[in-house]
Amino acid sequence: MRILLLNGPNLNMLGTREPEVYGRDTLDEIVAKVQGMAKELGVEVTALQSNHEGDLVDFIQQNQMTADAIIINPGAFGHYSYAIRDAISGSNLPAVEVHISNVHAREPFRETLVLSGVCRGVVTGFGWRGYLYALDLLVSTAKEGK
Amino acid sequence: MRILLLNGPNLNMLGTREPEVYGRDTLDEIVAKVQGMAKELGVEVTALQSNHEGDLVDFIQQNQMTADAIIINPGAFGHYSYAIRDAISGSNLPAVEVHISNVHAREPFRETLVLSGVCRGVVTGFGWRGYLYALDLLVSTAKEGK
Amino acid sequence: MRILLLNGPNLNMLGTREPEVYGRDTLDEIVAKVQGMAKELGVEVTALQSNHEGDLVDFIQQNQMTADAIIINPGAFGHYSYAIRDAISGSNLPAVEVHISNVHAREPFRETLVLSGVCRGVVTGFGWRGYLYALDLLVSTAKEGK
Amino acid sequence: MRILLLNGPNLNMLGTREPEVYGRDTLDEIVAKVQGMAKELGVEVTALQSNHEGDLVDFIQQNQMTADAIIINPGAFGHYSYAIRDAISGSNLPAVEVHISNVHAREPFRETLVLSGVCRGVVTGFGWRGYLYALDLLVSTAKEGK
Amino acid sequence: MRILLLNGPNLNMLGTREPEVYGRDTLDEIVAKVQGMAKELGVEVTALQSNHEGDLVDFIQQNQMTADAIIINPGAFGHYSYAIRDAISGSNLPAVEVHISNVHAREPFRETLVLSGVCRGVVTGFGWRGYLYALDLLVSTAKEGK
Amino acid sequence: MRILLLNGPNLNMLGTREPEVYGRDTLDEIVAKVQGMAKELGVEVTALQSNHEGDLVDFIQQNQMTADAIIINPGAFGHYSYAIRDAISGSNLPAVEVHISNVHAREPFRETLVLSGVCRGVVTGFGWRGYLYALDLLVSTAKEGK
Amino acid sequence: MRILLLNGPNLNMLGTREPEVYGRDTLDEIVAKVQGMAKELGVEVTALQSNHEGDLVDFIQQNQMTADAIIINPGAFGHYSYAIRDAISGSNLPAVEVHISNVHAREPFRETLVLSGVCRGVVTGFGWRGYLYALDLLVSTAKEGK
Amino acid sequence: MRILLLNGPNLNMLGTREPEVYGRDTLDEIVAKVQGMAKELGVEVTALQSNHEGDLVDFIQQNQMTADAIIINPGAFGHYSYAIRDAISGSNLPAVEVHISNVHAREPFRETLVLSGVCRGVVTGFGWRGYLYALDLLVSTAKEGK
Amino acid sequence: MRILLLNGPNLNMLGTREPEVYGRDTLDEIVAKVQGMAKELGVEVTALQSNHEGDLVDFIQQNQMTADAIIINPGAFGHYSYAIRDAISGSNLPAVEVHISNVHAREPFRETLVLSGVCRGVVTGFGWRGYLYALDLLVSTAKEGK
Amino acid sequence: MRILLLNGPNLNMLGTREPEVYGRDTLDEIVAKVQGMAKELGVEVTALQSNHEGDLVDFIQQNQMTADAIIINPGAFGHYSYAIRDAISGSNLPAVEVHISNVHAREPFRETLVLSGVCRGVVTGFGWRGYLYALDLLVSTAKEGK
Amino acid sequence: MRILLLNGPNLNMLGTREPEVYGRDTLDEIVAKVQGMAKELGVEVTALQSNHEGDLVDFIQQNQMTADAIIINPGAFGHYSYAIRDAISGSNLPAVEVHISNVHAREPFRETLVLSGVCRGVVTGFGWRGYLYALDLLVSTAKEGK
Amino acid sequence: MRILLLNGPNLNMLGTREPEVYGRDTLDEIVAKVQGMAKELGVEVTALQSNHEGDLVDFIQQNQMTADAIIINPGAFGHYSYAIRDAISGSNLPAVEVHISNVHAREPFRETLVLSGVCRGVVTGFGWRGYLYALDLLVSTAKEGK
Repeated sequence: MRILLLNGPNLNMLGTREPEVYGRDTLDEIVAKVQGMAKELGVEVTALQSNHEGDLVDFIQQNQMTADAIIINPGAFGHYSYAIRDAISGSNLPAVEVHISNVHAREPFRETLVLSGVCRGVVTGFGWRGYLYALDLLVSTAKEGK
Repeated sequence: MRILLLNGPNLNMLGTREPEVYGRDTLDEIVAKVQGMAKELGVEVTALQSNHEGDLVDFIQQNQMTADAIIINPGAFGHYSYAIRDAISGSNLPAVEVHISNVHAREPFRETLVLSGVCRGVVTGFGWRGYLYALDLLVSTAKEGK
Repeated sequence: MRILLLNGPNLNMLGTREPEVYGRDTLDEIVAKVQGMAKELGVEVTALQSNHEGDLVDFIQQNQMTADAIIINPGAFGHYSYAIRDAISGSNLPAVEVHISNVHAREPFRETLVLSGVCRGVVTGFGWRGYLYALDLLVSTAKEGK
Repeated sequence: MRILLLNGPNLNMLGTREPEVYGRDTLDEIVAKVQGMAKELGVEVTALQSNHEGDLVDFIQQNQMTADAIIINPGAFGHYSYAIRDAISGSNLPAVEVHISNVHAREPFRETLVLSGVCRGVVTGFGWRGYLYALDLLVSTAKEGK
Repeated sequence: MRILLLNGPNLNMLGTREPEVYGRDTLDEIVAKVQGMAKELGVEVTALQSNHEGDLVDFIQQNQMTADAIIINPGAFGHYSYAIRDAISGSNLPAVEVHISNVHAREPFRETLVLSGVCRGVVTGFGWRGYLYALDLLVSTAKEGK
Repeated sequence: MRILLLNGPNLNMLGTREPEVYGRDTLDEIVAKVQGMAKELGVEVTALQSNHEGDLVDFIQQNQMTADAIIINPGAFGHYSYAIRDAISGSNLPAVEVHISNVHAREPFRETLVLSGVCRGVVTGFGWRGYLYALDLLVSTAKEGK
Repeated sequence: MRILLLNGPNLNMLGTREPEVYGRDTLDEIVAKVQGMAKELGVEVTALQSNHEGDLVDFIQQNQMTADAIIINPGAFGHYSYAIRDAISGSNLPAVEVHISNVHAREPFRETLVLSGVCRGVVTGFGWRGYLYALDLLVSTAKEGK
Repeated sequence: MRILLLNGPNLNMLGTREPEVYGRDTLDEIVAKVQGMAKELGVEVTALQSNHEGDLVDFIQQNQMTADAIIINPGAFGHYSYAIRDAISGSNLPAVEVHISNVHAREPFRETLVLSGVCRGVVTGFGWRGYLYALDLLVSTAKEGK
Repeated sequence: MRILLLNGPNLNMLGTREPEVYGRDTLDEIVAKVQGMAKELGVEVTALQSNHEGDLVDFIQQNQMTADAIIINPGAFGHYSYAIRDAISGSNLPAVEVHISNVHAREPFRETLVLSGVCRGVVTGFGWRGYLYALDLLVSTAKEGK
Repeated sequence: MRILLLNGPNLNMLGTREPEVYGRDTLDEIVAKVQGMAKELGVEVTALQSNHEGDLVDFIQQNQMTADAIIINPGAFGHYSYAIRDAISGSNLPAVEVHISNVHAREPFRETLVLSGVCRGVVTGFGWRGYLYALDLLVSTAKEGK
Repeated sequence: MRILLLNGPNLNMLGTREPEVYGRDTLDEIVAKVQGMAKELGVEVTALQSNHEGDLVDFIQQNQMTADAIIINPGAFGHYSYAIRDAISGSNLPAVEVHISNVHAREPFRETLVLSGVCRGVVTGFGWRGYLYALDLLVSTAKEGK
Repeated sequence: MRILLLNGPNLNMLGTREPEVYGRDTLDEIVAKVQGMAKELGVEVTALQSNHEGDLVDFIQQNQMTADAIIINPGAFGHYSYAIRDAISGSNLPAVEVHISNVHAREPFRETLVLSGVCRGVVTGFGWRGYLYALDLLVSTAKEGK
């Protein structure tokens, strides 16, 4: 089983950018945690971070035939990128959307979630643990044949 | 450590009500899973299900001095109960909101989430696992002193 | 055949409350008319009035396995109770919504009908006769196997 | 006592047009049922179906001095014809609006009911029986002097 | 100089329909007043009343090459008929919109005026005098070459 | 009979300000036309122009016991001055609102008319003639005892 | 003279819940102040606090024949409970709505006040004094026969 | 194969009405072009222009059993006629909507297209060629069995 | 202690203007009541009524260094004067907003309260007593050092 | 004559992505069809597909001096890319917008077309033929000197 | 060259009013800076501050024949004064709007700018320097003959 | 001191693209002016223009540790790029937004400014001078230690 782990714009700045909102872990540390848990579960994780909308679309398209699921923290793209929505929807892969902070308790524009309608689930405000729970969900339900 | 587990209206019908949306587990089975995990983690869980908004408010108030956190699946109350919002906010307890189905991919009225602004995080569409992840988050962050 | 007859908040005051809007019949007199007609049709009617939203939800859940249809005058709950909506929807029973006055010709907030989307039909402004027509509809269509 | 029975655009196609929504009875069959019941009640019914908004307005005007009530299924005109609204209102006749299907459970544009504010009552989703109930209501309340 | 005088739906009922709103003059009496004033001014007035939107559109089209101006009381069509708007605009004739009652002081839907953007002026609430003032305006400005 | 003639902000610039929109007559010339017609009709007209909202309110209050009607061209105040609305309403005098240009065919903010709901009628786009028609209406209806 | 004093959800937590917003007085202390003042004025006050919407509706109905006025702090119910609105309206009793904090200076959802349209007056942001002023108003105007 | 060609209000004025917007071809010339192309393709075209909404509805209904497809330029009806929408939908025929000018680059109300949701495709701004392309599309896809 | 008492447009007409809405007391009588109570409380009240927005702004600015609190009945200015809002906010004085009638039970535009967000409290519908309660509140809380 | 053929995000996935919506032709096959028709018409077509918004803007800018027209299927960019809108507008080239599926019959966000206001025409729901019709239109009108 | 420098309500309090928002310079100091720069540039500046909307309108009108440009900081009037908008527009003078604080980063009502549509440019959040930049712009572009 | 100068999509076309809106200076000429002024002020300016949203985000991130301020003309990205907003906000650098034309006097979509809430100030409609004023502001306030 192979899972795509996408992180959108500004998430490469995790750990230094507004740590009181996003925590002090860097993205490398978070990806390492996900990779560690993936190893235990016997699944492969391929990760990409990009500030370019087009890169995320390319990545989904190029990997969709050989991957089984998507974990995506779209960052700000989650509020307006219909191009990524189309890419997820077109890939026919189960996807989970992750936001480190609770987007419902911040600025109003963060309550518009244009990807969530094509995802299986959404987790917000769980910090780096949200990624692990998303991984656990996707692997567990895959084993159950759902 | 003691955690309140609240379930709102119609969740007592889980397992039989629209299983293609909500899954085939009954609420008792789900609560048992949460209790099992709580035992492993060494924490206490006190559960309540009610179809009455006032019962949920009463329960939060009566337990807020002796509890450390709240897990709440408000069901339909999540879309309009400002009374529960005020109760959570007034309790000063960290809370996590759980929805079994992905409310973002259903009827438009389910996208209005009036409690989420006073919760630490929200997880939707993860099925019964959402409860376990909520529990794990609250216990883990409490141990970290957050 | 068994039919649930639910009346929501303030309907216990019928006959005395704003009779120019709601008529001079008491709820007891209306229920008696429905019971009389049910007797003729050879069906059983179980009635409940409550000012408590949770009571109505409880009642639907506790009777849904043994009942065949619902007649509900939700009163003001018809304008905001998504919990009752979910209970009706979850029961899988055919339902008819009744309002004594014509809600379309009163205050704007009364035009929002959150239950009607999960009912088979709606009758407003027909006074107490609306209940009888609802009963007639449900019994007639049941006999036709619809 | 004389009652006008108006049917708006496309209702002449009843029985063949989307029967899963509108049923298999033709308009002629439905009008015959109404006429049959009217005979029993000792009242006269004059019926008109038209796809022309102006025809319905003309008909109300030409008959308003000699008629006692209106039953109208406006079809799609119910969602935007302020001209018919003005005609009903100007006739000073009690009117009941009938929709065969439950307009509240279909496309959003069908929830806008511009005539209902000048009608005594509205019945939706009751199929052809809605016409009979409307007739019964109008005759019964007339006998009661309301 | 020749002027078209159009009256829309329900205006043929003037004098009997809601006289406290629209006054006690019949449409024939009002048209006679306009004709009388036209005679004095030496201009010709051709009048039409119809409850059919298409009739008003036809009339504008058929007369637009031989007429010099339009006075129109669109009645309820003034609130939604883009077809008449297009006909007025396409005729390239100066037009004045007349409403007998003050539409700004009645139901909210009467404040939407879809024709007024292609008219030279609008007069509301002036009763039958509004027609005379419209006639005077059109003749006076024509004489001034505007 | 005595009539108040009020003109709001920027109307003192008539004749020089955007003459293609407002015409080439100065306010003095327009007031003179109104005074001339008033003389013929045997009524008195007291005029005020001000760029100050409070001046217009003061003027209505100070004259309301001795005046019989109001003609007001509120200029831009017509779009937001609820204080003038209250003054007109409190005076219990019949009022007519005049706009020289057709506000319905200009910027969207000019379609909001907050005074018109407490006026007897509104005339827009009739140029300086709108004032004369307003005067004629008020004198004529007063003679008829309306 | 007898006055009903209703307090809605979470108000039983006054004094401990967010005291910087709601003050340090407990509800018991506030009710005692109201009772003290009532004694001086020679009127009787019957108080109820409940987190259950239905309790408040029941209480109004059961006491409406023997009471003369209502003071209600609906808490969060003030923002969505049309059932309580109907109960107040149906009781035909003069009512005053009290909010301890200034709801106009807090979250946007607190600016929606669905009860205020059927109350005689509203006081917000006056702390516990708001109750006393409401009592004084109701007693004083009753003595004046209003 | 037989195709219905419908043209709505004001399109009979093509060639003379605002030619800078709609071009200089008359409707007869355009219909002749469509008929010419139909002859080459071996299909029959039956054309109707009407300013009456009801005529277009009638025409669809009367021909729907013997026709295979619809080309419709609804003119202004395209912005509000739910009656035509219902007729197209009820006919079960594939339909293409044509607008001569680009409705997206004109007044805002022209962007509301209430028919397009029940059509197979829409072409705007292509002038008279839009009709030919619509014809080509319908014939070509019919040959392919779609 | 010195308190500013401001009254906005049209309030100088109290007693004669729509007494069924605003009561029969004149503004002078109400100010005298406030002055009488102020005397008892040992505080000074400086009053101003104006129909001019700028006067109210000037008055706040000129007195803000020597005053301790503001009582303001802004009349219609309460619905749109951001200039007064800025003046209150800039003065750093505690303010209470008073409306004689219950603005929540009148026209919709009266529900927009643009000053209330910078006031400590708002009282509506309490008649002239609202001023006294505002005074009592401001003096009492000042004594308590709040 | 030289024409630019642009395709936006996810269109490189044509043929495999949701074929029931977009058909089974790949983008290469569609471009080949356009090239074939261009050869017959004696015009040159230069094609680009990209998932990067910036690439499309660059391409328009770099070719605008040597190209004569634009055919663009913007995919999801059509719903929010004002940057492409500015590029088209700045190029001064006639453009036609193509969508393979009928965007008006899908999700609401697809009805927002931000490019169409600067295009000459729009064709939606015509499948791959839409590109050919766009090409034919641009070549034909160019030959006519429009 | 002569330039009008207008400052609206509450700006006379600069330096003392909320200095963390508006800075510590008084209006006199700012005007002195503008006058100093004007001297260097060889232009004349005539300044006015008023809390009265009418004063600002009067001032523009009285000076528009002898002035060459306007710099205006409308304060709160910028959010609702259509009267000042009309005055600027009617003067035919180039105008620049200045706000000391960044209105886009404060309360939502400050984002409505009703004057900016008739100004040449707007500068917000630049403190007192915004006035100097406005002056520099107007003088520079005047020299360039724009 | 080092300042980042960012220009968004289509600004590389300055001078040739719609010069009546944006002026005749090329971007190179404008940047040269900024560099010249920077030299005088003794600060360093690093410039980037890109049509790729991601490039702008990268650039901010890569330079934020070594830069002191940002000047950004986001072009169309200013109306929807939440990714750039997050980048600016995350950099913790003071930023000024520049638009060459007055966006408030053009199409409505240009009034939505999604970056301005995280900028210190905004200048629109000042042409190329806006950049110089932004530079002057940032250098001056930095020297003042703000």
